Amino acid sequence: MNKHVFMFDDTDANGKELLGGKGANLAEMTRIGLPVPYGFTISTKACNAFYEAGEQLPADVKEQVDTALEKLEKTTGKGLGDRENPLLVSVRSGAVFSMPGMMDTVLNLGMNDETVVSMAELTGEPRFAYDSYRRFIQMFSDVVLGVDSEKFERKIETHKQLHGFSADPDLSASDWKTLIKQFQTIVEQETGRAFPQDPCEQMILAIQAVFGSWNNDRAQLYRKWHGIPGHLGTAVNIQSMVFGNTGNDSGTGVAFSRNPSTGESKLYGEYLINAQGEDVVAGIRTPQAIETLRDSMPDVYQTFAETCRRLENHYRDMQDIEFTIERGKLFILQTRNGKRTAEASVRIAVDMHEEEILTKDEALMRVDPEQLGQLLHRRIDETSSFEVLAKGLPASPGAATGKVVFSADDAEDKKAAGVPVILVRPETTPDDIHGIIAAEAVVTTRGGMTSHAAVVARGMGKACISGCSDVSIDLANKTFSVGSTEVSYLETVTINGGTGELMLGELTMADPELSDEFHRLLAWADDRKHLGIRTNSDTPDDAARALAFGAEGIGLCRTEHMFMDPERIPVVREMILALTSADRQQALDRLLPMQADDFRGIFETMGSRPVTIRLLDPPLHEFLPDKEELIKETAQLEITDPASNELKTKKELLREVRRLDESNPMLGHRGCRLAMVYPEIYAMQVEAIMHAAIDRAADGAAVRPEIMIPLVGHVNELKAMRRLVKESADRVLNETGEYVAYTIGTMIEVPRAALTADAIAAEADFFSFGTNDLTQTTFGYSRDDAENKFLQRYIDDETLADNPFMVLDSEGVGELVKIGVEKGRSVKEQLKTGICGEHGGETSSIAFCHAQRLDYISCSPYRVPLARLAAAQAAVVEQTGAAKEKINV
Amino acid sequence: MNKHVFMFDDTDANGKELLGGKGANLAEMTRIGLPVPYGFTISTKACNAFYEAGEQLPADVKEQVDTALEKLEKTTGKGLGDRENPLLVSVRSGAVFSMPGMMDTVLNLGMNDETVVSMAELTGEPRFAYDSYRRFIQMFSDVVLGVDSEKFERKIETHKQLHGFSADPDLSASDWKTLIKQFQTIVEQETGRAFPQDPCEQMILAIQAVFGSWNNDRAQLYRKWHGIPGHLGTAVNIQSMVFGNTGNDSGTGVAFSRNPSTGESKLYGEYLINAQGEDVVAGIRTPQAIETLRDSMPDVYQTFAETCRRLENHYRDMQDIEFTIERGKLFILQTRNGKRTAEASVRIAVDMHEEEILTKDEALMRVDPEQLGQLLHRRIDETSSFEVLAKGLPASPGAATGKVVFSADDAEDKKAAGVPVILVRPETTPDDIHGIIAAEAVVTTRGGMTSHAAVVARGMGKACISGCSDVSIDLANKTFSVGSTEVSYLETVTINGGTGELMLGELTMADPELSDEFHRLLAWADDRKHLGIRTNSDTPDDAARALAFGAEGIGLCRTEHMFMDPERIPVVREMILALTSADRQQALDRLLPMQADDFRGIFETMGSRPVTIRLLDPPLHEFLPDKEELIKETAQLEITDPASNELKTKKELLREVRRLDESNPMLGHRGCRLAMVYPEIYAMQVEAIMHAAIDRAADGAAVRPEIMIPLVGHVNELKAMRRLVKESADRVLNETGEYVAYTIGTMIEVPRAALTADAIAAEADFFSFGTNDLTQTTFGYSRDDAENKFLQRYIDDETLADNPFMVLDSEGVGELVKIGVEKGRSVKEQLKTGICGEHGGETSSIAFCHAQRLDYISCSPYRVPLARLAAAQAAVVEQTGAAKEKINV
Repeated sequence: MNKHVFMFDDTDANGKELLGGKGANLAEMTRIGLPVPYGFTISTKACNAFYEAGEQLPADVKEQVDTALEKLEKTTGKGLGDRENPLLVSVRSGAVFSMPGMMDTVLNLGMNDETVVSMAELTGEPRFAYDSYRRFIQMFSDVVLGVDSEKFERKIETHKQLHGFSADPDLSASDWKTLIKQFQTIVEQETGRAFPQDPCEQMILAIQAVFGSWNNDRAQLYRKWHGIPGHLGTAVNIQSMVFGNTGNDSGTGVAFSRNPSTGESKLYGEYLINAQGEDVVAGIRTPQAIETLRDSMPDVYQTFAETCRRLENHYRDMQDIEFTIERGKLFILQTRNGKRTAEASVRIAVDMHEEEILTKDEALMRVDPEQLGQLLHRRIDETSSFEVLAKGLPASPGAATGKVVFSADDAEDKKAAGVPVILVRPETTPDDIHGIIAAEAVVTTRGGMTSHAAVVARGMGKACISGCSDVSIDLANKTFSVGSTEVSYLETVTINGGTGELMLGELTMADPELSDEFHRLLAWADDRKHLGIRTNSDTPDDAARALAFGAEGIGLCRTEHMFMDPERIPVVREMILALTSADRQQALDRLLPMQADDFRGIFETMGSRPVTIRLLDPPLHEFLPDKEELIKETAQLEITDPASNELKTKKELLREVRRLDESNPMLGHRGCRLAMVYPEIYAMQVEAIMHAAIDRAADGAAVRPEIMIPLVGHVNELKAMRRLVKESADRVLNETGEYVAYTIGTMIEVPRAALTADAIAAEADFFSFGTNDLTQTTFGYSRDDAENKFLQRYIDDETLADNPFMVLDSEGVGELVKIGVEKGRSVKEQLKTGICGEHGGETSSIAFCHAQRLDYISCSPYRVPLARLAAAQAAVVEQTGAAKEKINV
Repeated sequence: MNKHVFMFDDTDANGKELLGGKGANLAEMTRIGLPVPYGFTISTKACNAFYEAGEQLPADVKEQVDTALEKLEKTTGKGLGDRENPLLVSVRSGAVFSMPGMMDTVLNLGMNDETVVSMAELTGEPRFAYDSYRRFIQMFSDVVLGVDSEKFERKIETHKQLHGFSADPDLSASDWKTLIKQFQTIVEQETGRAFPQDPCEQMILAIQAVFGSWNNDRAQLYRKWHGIPGHLGTAVNIQSMVFGNTGNDSGTGVAFSRNPSTGESKLYGEYLINAQGEDVVAGIRTPQAIETLRDSMPDVYQTFAETCRRLENHYRDMQDIEFTIERGKLFILQTRNGKRTAEASVRIAVDMHEEEILTKDEALMRVDPEQLGQLLHRRIDETSSFEVLAKGLPASPGAATGKVVFSADDAEDKKAAGVPVILVRPETTPDDIHGIIAAEAVVTTRGGMTSHAAVVARGMGKACISGCSDVSIDLANKTFSVGSTEVSYLETVTINGGTGELMLGELTMADPELSDEFHRLLAWADDRKHLGIRTNSDTPDDAARALAFGAEGIGLCRTEHMFMDPERIPVVREMILALTSADRQQALDRLLPMQADDFRGIFETMGSRPVTIRLLDPPLHEFLPDKEELIKETAQLEITDPASNELKTKKELLREVRRLDESNPMLGHRGCRLAMVYPEIYAMQVEAIMHAAIDRAADGAAVRPEIMIPLVGHVNELKAMRRLVKESADRVLNETGEYVAYTIGTMIEVPRAALTADAIAAEADFFSFGTNDLTQTTFGYSRDDAENKFLQRYIDDETLADNPFMVLDSEGVGELVKIGVEKGRSVKEQLKTGICGEHGGETSSIAFCHAQRLDYISCSPYRVPLARLAAAQAAVVEQTGAAKEKINV
């Protein structure tokens, strides 16, 4: 028989995989002697067994739960359903990766019409007992029985109005008693049977409900967003209840051992006096800062601060801790590695290395490369003038501009229509998760720094202001007001999550300021990584930005955008439409000095770093007017002005556009195929490159142009192109009498190039894997068509694990990269190899490139820091076998 | 020093590669004691050396020529330029593969102002001597000095008119003497120097001219058509002249040891009395049939017939022999394996096996599979009524219909415009080669069965009528007339090359009648081959045709053409434009019985043979109206009738067309990707297949449906499709209570499928390599775009050796096939594998499939016989190492 149930002090089980994160930590804390209310954990394997059995708890699990319950009763000296000394428990989910609020929880389980009476007698607080019972009925009915919570709330409202009460505390024990009766009637009406009085039945039902909630919509959505596999399952923790709502010497709170927003090494959190834990997380009441506990309960605070330190040292990471104070006694309900912003993540990692808690490798592994992008985004230009409309808590940093929406559904709709939105809510609940995903940022009027909105937004790297009480929302009319200022639905606002400030309109943005810790961490990464990190940049500005982010060269400078310049496009069109080679040459002669200027600027920025320039790639018709527009115009002119010259001209143009038109341009006349037919285009580009290089060389710069041929599929193409490039380059060198070293390489971006890489390598100084096109041809997917038509569906239904245009498909596309590198190196051992598809900026793809021993990856400027760190992590993982941690999920 | 020059009786050289075909055979015939005029051969390597030296004969070759010439003079007892006993020689090209008439020839070399006098004295025939001299000047000036032959012809014309002569024989020795003077003046005017009198200089110049002609336009075109590599070069043969034009006991002719048109084992040829060899080949005089020689010169005929038999037995193949009779003595000038029609090819191979000359394997290797197609083409329905307008010689069999053109250039122009043409000429010359390539068939009014037009047309498998003297052509007015009937430019005619008949208009065609030899040869092939041969057929008619040609099953039954039926297309559109799944199902329900009918017909035809049905593959927008047309129509309606319902409807339709529109449909939403989104489409198709199969099974037939999923790239797609197919099929089986075995397989047509074939094989009963799409994705070529835009250029400039859509690219695409087969079989040893791209009907690609041990290939019905033979040849080549011969080039 498999063991599915483990007491917190069982010694024969550990590990998050089996016990879930929460269960493992409860066991661990129990082991090291922290004040954890006793209980047991039902393993994640039991969850899988539950689903295999058709969403029923298998008999052997039930038996083990009974045995565990007996032990719990024995240890606590209480009994579930015992009239004399009733045991109450919480039933909580606890997955391998924390999914805050996504799954169900039941508190106060074990209450019934009898135990509530004993509770009242035992505690001498009947109001507390009946309040707890009604809370239990509400929660259990909602979570386990599926009765809409609103129905209960409406009864409470009615009761208040009837008796002139304004708030919950006005209700007495007998009020709650009356309401409990009404609640039970509701349950009977809705479910067709009485509210279950048997605490054992309650427990089995609750366990099943929690397991069942693993697959609710919001949990699935959350897992998808964070990339958590569905087969992991959740554990369930049964823990004896402690009560933070037994008076003013009780309370409950959440704290982080360091600031999860900035990383500052200082206790950070909040608590509520006389409340249960759910009240804090739900963000319904705005709690007090943890520091104030020092004054109100100095001993408790002292113990708590020490415990936090102990936990952080034990887990060697910043902790997110839930605690409850029951009549002056501190209990730790949960600890876990705390979610944090990118800024905090970097600072904590660096600090912990300085504090000698972590090695450098460990510090490097602690930061999620994907998170780094958040630090690079533009922020509000503080030197520009703007007026702050309202201020709340700086719950998650970052600047965001968007149109105001008031519901998660609106957020999702508008986002789908391409409108960036700011979600403004009184508070958010797990049901709003799709709205938070859709929004640029979230503002809540209630709740603290640890409220649902704050935690989720930080985890997603979205800006958030919580507890912004200046704002009052009118949900019905879709407006909010701050004093006399009214802001309506879809009005534009800007928020600064780092300061908690809300402003009207769109504000000027400025480049980010990068912290000292950021630079230190990435310097460590540079020391550790093997891969070179280059950038895909087409302009001096982009190149400069990439350099500031640590790029070591340009891996892909596309030349087509240079052709698209409005001033040049007429000349480019002349070139394309030229009927004779001489006319074409004339247009190219006019483009030559412009191109030379482009390259001069880039060489100037890059100094002696390598600059890989890809010669013209797209099909020529991309530079011509839109065909459909021309068809429409000529069709109409044929009616309105059939004899006009305009019609004649347009018809001629349309004929040319049609001549160049292609059924599948992606697989058409582009890349080096253009230059095989019109060699003069590449000749001009190479001359421009060499003129620019010579100018820079004359100024004493050691420029390093690397000329790259796109879309080679057969070695004979590269042979011809190599000859053409060499002739053109050497002509300029001979004419000017100058010398500049240059190399000639090729993109590997169609399968045939990879499959025949041995032949191709003989003609190439370097290979650059163009994994965007290689993905298109390997899968047979046109990216333009696939994403809307079927690819999203493939990802949703897990036909594909990832979007292959974002995450390199290691089985298929990766296999070709592998074949290409192996065959290439079999001919030329020192062949330089790189990758310049968008995958060059994606963590797992970078690890793949590291494993293939590529020389470099190239990515967009904003991905450069990510790439540096990811490359270092790949090296650490390979050498030490360290696992990549998912910190923020 | 390399030996470049070989006497005919040299024993240290042999082989066509070095000596060219003609040189090798001259040496061989000399060796076996046949009456061959003595001479020597300058090797093909010397040709390459000539080009390497910048089109100059290298000094060492010149020296060797001098030495060889000395030997020739010694053996013949004559001297080049010797006044007493002058040696005259012919200088002819002789490539590895015969290229009749494509390169240059010089006869009578060695004549000059002095030797002509000796010739006249020695022969006592001054007219013959001066006629020969003027012929030499004309030919040498044309071929070597580049003087337009017309200039000489005009002088002859003028001379005739001046003296009232009507034909050449009217001219006396002194007339020719006068003209020789005029000719020499022309040469001096045109070239700036006197006609070369030094025979040694003549020889070197002639050798250089012949080498130079290897790269003339027509030779290059011919090589391209026949796939002869350009690096082979030509040899040059220098042979002492014998004269067929020394009177009525002399003559010259060409004969085949068997009939090259039908294969009949009977001497076949023709000759001219008192003529030189060029007169026969050029087709200017219509010669006499070889049989008549039996009466005119019985001894010579007897000797010749024996020699032919001897040569055929020696070379073990049908021979094409040139001979000259000089004053009653027979000389053999050349022998080679004779070009032949497909019909002859098959019959000769079969006969020669029956005659115990060839083994079965050899017989199989003797027929070029590509030629077989000629036998399958439809022929004129002899039972229909038609009138024969004119009748000529049946020079090359086959029926053809086309529009009349009178020049090679017109033929080429019209062909390029998509118009099939019949080229009608007095005679053809090597300069007309592009016109013959362009034409469906050729008609000449002059020339015999061995004329240029006849030989070339037979080689290309085109129909030809030669010597059609009823026809008189008016080139100036572009008409021809037969009696009172005038036929003008671009009028349609039909010819029957097998009977020599020319008819007006387009005639009814009928299926071919296949000879007994054809069936026997292919039965031998079936015994020999390993590959199964299936067909790509979508209709019962096609399937029946393929069966008649020997197909063993259907390898690809496409279902999209079934959707294109005009009656169905409205329902198909309804299905596509359906907004709800229910509406879509309704349309599909109406398509179901139609589809079931389609399959029923095919199963009926195929009986118990396997039928692989590919479910719907093309993107749905292919079934919708043309987008450009809709844009035009709506644009115009917006002006002419902006409030009309028509505009509203068209706009809505346009919106839908746009929604389904794709930038790269080839890589878009098609194949199984359709069914991943709209599973009901495949479900309907599978139900239709199973209903049809069950109906047939109920009639007792053992139908074998194989259901094939297109465009699978990831195993998860195939998993989902397998589930869908199985559910749909089993539903029908359960409903009807019948049982029909079926299998489920996949196309391998994107690189990723091949690269992950191990995973995919686990879900597939069979693999069918769709090499059309696989070629597109492996190269990154859209076939629609590539062929016009750059692919033709790639083939012309030899960037690619072949069009990869016609000949499987074994390096790239083939590598993926190999990987796919290996990985697939690594998981499922008995995995059935086949190929269903167009390559399945191409000889070298079939050999590749054989080498990969595919189970079958599938090709279009008309390619089935070719595939059977090619598959057998692949097996023979593999087992015996036999080389594939190029017989008809």
